[in-house]
Amino acid sequence: MKFRTKQAASMLLAAGFGCAAVGSAYAAESLQDVMKRRNLSQQDLLAASKTYVPTGKRDEFVAFSSGGQSGQVIVYGIPSMRILKYIGVFTPEPWQGYGFDESSKAVLAQGKIDGKDITWGDTHHPAMSETQGQYDGQFLFINDKANPRLAVIDLRDFETKQIVVNPIYKSEHGGAFVTPNTEYVIEAAQYATPLENKKFYPLEEFNEKYRGGVTYWKFDRKEGRIDPKKSFSVELPPYSQDLSDAGKGPSDGWSFTNSFCTERYVGGIEKGRPPYEAGCSAKDTDYMHVINWKKAAELVAAGRAKKINGHDVLMLDTSIKEGVVFLVPEPKSPHGVDVTPDGKFITVSGKLDTHVSVYSFEKIQAAIKAGKFESKDPYGLPVINMKDALHTQVQLGLGPLHTQYDAKPCVAYTSLYVDSQVAKWNYCEGKVLDKISVHYNIGHLMTMEGDSMDPKGRYLVALNKLSIDRFAPVGPLHPQNHQLIDISDDKMQLLYDMPLPLGEPHYVVAIEASKLKPGVRYKVGTDSRTDKKHAGAVRAGEEKTVRTGNKVEVFGTLIRSHITPETIEAEVGDEIIINLTNLERAQDETHGFAVSTYNVHASIEPGKTVQVKFKADKEGVYPYYCTEFCSALHLEMQGYLLVKPKGWKPTKTAMSAGTNYSEADYKAQLKKVVDTQAVIDSVVGYITGVNYKDFPDVVAMMDDAVDQLGKIKDAKAKADEAAGKKDWNNATLWTEQIWQYQVKAADLGLRAKTYLEQNGAKKAK
Amino acid sequence: MKFRTKQAASMLLAAGFGCAAVGSAYAAESLQDVMKRRNLSQQDLLAASKTYVPTGKRDEFVAFSSGGQSGQVIVYGIPSMRILKYIGVFTPEPWQGYGFDESSKAVLAQGKIDGKDITWGDTHHPAMSETQGQYDGQFLFINDKANPRLAVIDLRDFETKQIVVNPIYKSEHGGAFVTPNTEYVIEAAQYATPLENKKFYPLEEFNEKYRGGVTYWKFDRKEGRIDPKKSFSVELPPYSQDLSDAGKGPSDGWSFTNSFCTERYVGGIEKGRPPYEAGCSAKDTDYMHVINWKKAAELVAAGRAKKINGHDVLMLDTSIKEGVVFLVPEPKSPHGVDVTPDGKFITVSGKLDTHVSVYSFEKIQAAIKAGKFESKDPYGLPVINMKDALHTQVQLGLGPLHTQYDAKPCVAYTSLYVDSQVAKWNYCEGKVLDKISVHYNIGHLMTMEGDSMDPKGRYLVALNKLSIDRFAPVGPLHPQNHQLIDISDDKMQLLYDMPLPLGEPHYVVAIEASKLKPGVRYKVGTDSRTDKKHAGAVRAGEEKTVRTGNKVEVFGTLIRSHITPETIEAEVGDEIIINLTNLERAQDETHGFAVSTYNVHASIEPGKTVQVKFKADKEGVYPYYCTEFCSALHLEMQGYLLVKPKGWKPTKTAMSAGTNYSEADYKAQLKKVVDTQAVIDSVVGYITGVNYKDFPDVVAMMDDAVDQLGKIKDAKAKADEAAGKKDWNNATLWTEQIWQYQVKAADLGLRAKTYLEQNGAKKAK
Repeated sequence: MKFRTKQAASMLLAAGFGCAAVGSAYAAESLQDVMKRRNLSQQDLLAASKTYVPTGKRDEFVAFSSGGQSGQVIVYGIPSMRILKYIGVFTPEPWQGYGFDESSKAVLAQGKIDGKDITWGDTHHPAMSETQGQYDGQFLFINDKANPRLAVIDLRDFETKQIVVNPIYKSEHGGAFVTPNTEYVIEAAQYATPLENKKFYPLEEFNEKYRGGVTYWKFDRKEGRIDPKKSFSVELPPYSQDLSDAGKGPSDGWSFTNSFCTERYVGGIEKGRPPYEAGCSAKDTDYMHVINWKKAAELVAAGRAKKINGHDVLMLDTSIKEGVVFLVPEPKSPHGVDVTPDGKFITVSGKLDTHVSVYSFEKIQAAIKAGKFESKDPYGLPVINMKDALHTQVQLGLGPLHTQYDAKPCVAYTSLYVDSQVAKWNYCEGKVLDKISVHYNIGHLMTMEGDSMDPKGRYLVALNKLSIDRFAPVGPLHPQNHQLIDISDDKMQLLYDMPLPLGEPHYVVAIEASKLKPGVRYKVGTDSRTDKKHAGAVRAGEEKTVRTGNKVEVFGTLIRSHITPETIEAEVGDEIIINLTNLERAQDETHGFAVSTYNVHASIEPGKTVQVKFKADKEGVYPYYCTEFCSALHLEMQGYLLVKPKGWKPTKTAMSAGTNYSEADYKAQLKKVVDTQAVIDSVVGYITGVNYKDFPDVVAMMDDAVDQLGKIKDAKAKADEAAGKKDWNNATLWTEQIWQYQVKAADLGLRAKTYLEQNGAKKAK
Repeated sequence: MKFRTKQAASMLLAAGFGCAAVGSAYAAESLQDVMKRRNLSQQDLLAASKTYVPTGKRDEFVAFSSGGQSGQVIVYGIPSMRILKYIGVFTPEPWQGYGFDESSKAVLAQGKIDGKDITWGDTHHPAMSETQGQYDGQFLFINDKANPRLAVIDLRDFETKQIVVNPIYKSEHGGAFVTPNTEYVIEAAQYATPLENKKFYPLEEFNEKYRGGVTYWKFDRKEGRIDPKKSFSVELPPYSQDLSDAGKGPSDGWSFTNSFCTERYVGGIEKGRPPYEAGCSAKDTDYMHVINWKKAAELVAAGRAKKINGHDVLMLDTSIKEGVVFLVPEPKSPHGVDVTPDGKFITVSGKLDTHVSVYSFEKIQAAIKAGKFESKDPYGLPVINMKDALHTQVQLGLGPLHTQYDAKPCVAYTSLYVDSQVAKWNYCEGKVLDKISVHYNIGHLMTMEGDSMDPKGRYLVALNKLSIDRFAPVGPLHPQNHQLIDISDDKMQLLYDMPLPLGEPHYVVAIEASKLKPGVRYKVGTDSRTDKKHAGAVRAGEEKTVRTGNKVEVFGTLIRSHITPETIEAEVGDEIIINLTNLERAQDETHGFAVSTYNVHASIEPGKTVQVKFKADKEGVYPYYCTEFCSALHLEMQGYLLVKPKGWKPTKTAMSAGTNYSEADYKAQLKKVVDTQAVIDSVVGYITGVNYKDFPDVVAMMDDAVDQLGKIKDAKAKADEAAGKKDWNNATLWTEQIWQYQVKAADLGLRAKTYLEQNGAKKAK
């Protein structure tokens, strides 16, 4: 469907698309020129128009993706598919200072296992906090499969606040999933192991001593933290439990967890036995676990749990006796158990089956109520006959994997791994509606708020694992490919290929951007990891360095372009503790802090206070500096850590000045200050001449500029005093400092001016 | 310029832009609908058409950006601005296994300072290797400002191969810059310190004992490594040296380094002294260092250098005596010293001056030849009068910073930090041509191969430090904003805003995508960090586990979907060494490897061999698994590390089978195999019916599929043997394994089919 005729092209020109500049050396291309040069089809242009977000405009949805073995969470905008942030979760990340300042080290230290640091994680399934089954945009939960852990991210500042270690598993793939009011965060075991920590049993005792389970982590929304003491687990047979979902509406109070390798095969390829993949997929069905979590919670509260490694576990015999856990066969090796928005059905796909199976919660409940079971599993759990639980089955294709829902009634989408396709189908009537090819080998897929009670439709993201020919090559380790698909029409349309530059995402959730309301800056002196006042915070003018024994503690501040203090003196072997508060008010004026060769870094956003700590175990001179390009003089935002030999005494007390200044230098500085004030006055004139007060960002910038100008008084007093004494060095430098404050105020003013022009400011009334 | 009339809209429809589906429940939007709904202007649509890259098409240029304090390099495509990869350089990164397997740990260990790990870096200025002054796409160099280090990345596999520590500095901002044939990689000191390592001198002796310098790292292109023994430095006064550039063409053999704080001010805000920013910017000029590096190299080779910390340093007195270093005043606090493509001029901008200064290399040489100097600096270096060296100065605006060049003759672009603008100007005639606003506070800028002898023009990227209102908010730490600007026309046009999700980039280089020719897979058994055969590599069938004393060494392999071995047995306290070779041939079939809670991870691309090592210091059962979603049964790609108590003896020797299989199960498996073969035959029929041999990627996939099918013979023999003995368990499982091979072959075949359809395969002749 490319332009075939000159006529079509000239119509485009008539429609006003031509932009040819007249009389220029290099003529601007028209739309038709660009389409021809870049070999774009009409369909490509339509896709471009659906995904392009012009400067200053925002994405409609914000997606949160697991980063897989990068141990992070990836945040991106939809439909532009631009990545907005990588959030450090299980892996230290120096740009964010994560794992380099003391408070964030303490968060990572919560994730220690058996007393040892784990410096990475395998994140798989993020979950957004929910209120009444709808995404509320407050918290994000993410698991670590390799080291069974779960993290809490606060979406007020997009920082990781807590890591909890599962006390009874050795791996867990199936977290995080939340109950409809985020009462609990659900996390299922993956590979069965003995539940007692550091306990060895041979594989010969697999059936007897190895176990799986599902953990329900209690979330305290007010504290924004998981409460491990109020959390519990339900013991399960040594099947490989996999993904879960919480019931909602009619099925609220129940949760569903699928599984694979219910054959309980233990491999042994090295001994000539068939490998795991054969032994773990030989049966046609595995089990969906149907769990009454409300009843389980009541039983635990009633003291019916057993403590294992200090953690409440509802054992199998109690679950069987009290009717907490039921099994339903599901097609083999499934991945995903997805409750419909109305809470009435649960869909499961076996990756080695061509069908998607739709289970009816009502039918399952009827079977349970009637006590109608086809058998018991080897551990005594009642098994409901598949036919008694099924609403319908639909043949979709090869490798069906994960299902998400549309805003349109009864419409679902399922990824087909082997076919490299997405199938659109109707789960009420059980029929296929459409299919589209993706590139290549799709794992999970995701629709907007598509696992909540109120899916938003419009877009679908295919999380393709392989991208072989899609992108410019970057070596043997390829990016994955998230493809954006338009689902607003009857036919799905491929819109965009997005490479994933870091990490191997497994699952994504996306929320309407308008639901996210992050803070723009911290209250001055905040420890962002505890949300409390930082003990090391000081205000401007209160900076100090305190020596106690062999401990040197700095209480410093940061503001464009100084670190206070600019010199830290220590002796070899001293413990150095540096607390730094960012005094800026402009919301994006982050400062960083690094000390040469001491492996120290911090990111200090406006209002934040951080602490870094290290032993000054090397004699010498170590520069420190602000690592963020924060102003025109950010390179000069520096200082020296001086580490002296023990007992060192100065032999030279006067400093040889590098440069001496004259009265003429001082006068030249004075003139510069007067000239610059004229620039500032003109910018201020523009800003106050428009409705700048309607723009909170600009008001904050103006506050910040006024802060900078406010510092002039003190610098001027010092300059005047020095000039009075004919101390031309200090008179010149303090006047230079006045000019620096002016430059920063002008910088803010000019940015505010550009901002106002961009955002359609109008003449003030 | 939005659509104002229905007429224009209907013309668009006439031009074939309408895509409304007839008789559908949800009608497809036309281009005009989309533009109206999304409030896109005609200019927006034009920008979208210039940046959108449809699925399967590639970007024209590939950019390499420093990641700042993330310690990484960011790779992205232009014009789509999609990030393709984060390369781990100074910071461990688990997705790539970087810092988690033994070979990559060894690379990071090269970057230890004073015997200690540094687990982050502050990357600033990447440089592409050059041949005859042109980008050759072979290697990338990147510095660490905080801990003075330099890394070498091989663009055959986009992996970091080497880290060198600067032996005499404590910080360095001004690396990396290469000479025209990459003879040397240039790295300048930043904050002056004593050159002797771990040597303390007080700030009172700053002028006497602190020094700066420029290091010339010798690059051995054949080895792909820096040769520290053949590298040297030139001692410089304690000014803060900053960025550099190498001469080229007529100026080849010389290099240029700018500086700030030639006032040699040492701060002291905590003592009531004016801060660094005042004392370091009080003079109107700093110094550009003009260095004859060829002569310096000759002098070093002739033994004229002094060894400091074991490293050759050409001392100031020798440089002065031999005419190696000259100074030229430059406007104060500059950042960037950029040689024009023809090598005739050098541009410098003082951030606190409104001009860009164009120096003439010819004039500088004339002054040197004539011995015409205005003075000597306090260290005896000859200073050339600014007027004697200047070609022209052009007033550009507030905060001029960095200059890059166009393919068009005499055309340059300079970033204006305070004005938040890019200025386009003519450096031959000294006039401003155009300006454009950017959002906000631009640091560096970059044009395509714009610092080489052959700039490509077309695009410019503005590296904006602040993005306040540009993107959906993600908390107090904002992304930076790289804006793509079209420079092909007389007027610059803003095309795209790209958020930076991780790291704080400082500088970028971009190369024509066609010049990059990375490998698609490793030769089987390669240690990717040494480019040599890995001692732990084995071929299929050679896998083994060897115990020597308390050391357990595994020589294993990975192929969809097995890890061989599937069980590793150890006693508490054993040292575990696991070597793994990826046997895949499909280029994107990477496997990962993780061991539960032992902080072990590896990324193993096809052909690669890695080694991980840890002490099994905890009794218990620890699953290991493949962390890459590599096939439909990747969850089953697992194994167990069994850590027994010392002296443990088995009490139960027979394994209780989880599931028993009957003859009927075996026969069902046989039927499944026959049915699946029909699917494979149909896919093979399609592929061999088209010109698949014209597609190397597909040929590799077919090889891989044939590999999988080739394994069937062995599995079938085992199944037949077991069936002969009526061992239905093994007969069933080995037949299941045959089916697994079929599924993987079918998966590859279906992907190849989609690939061929996407890439326009034609009927075979």
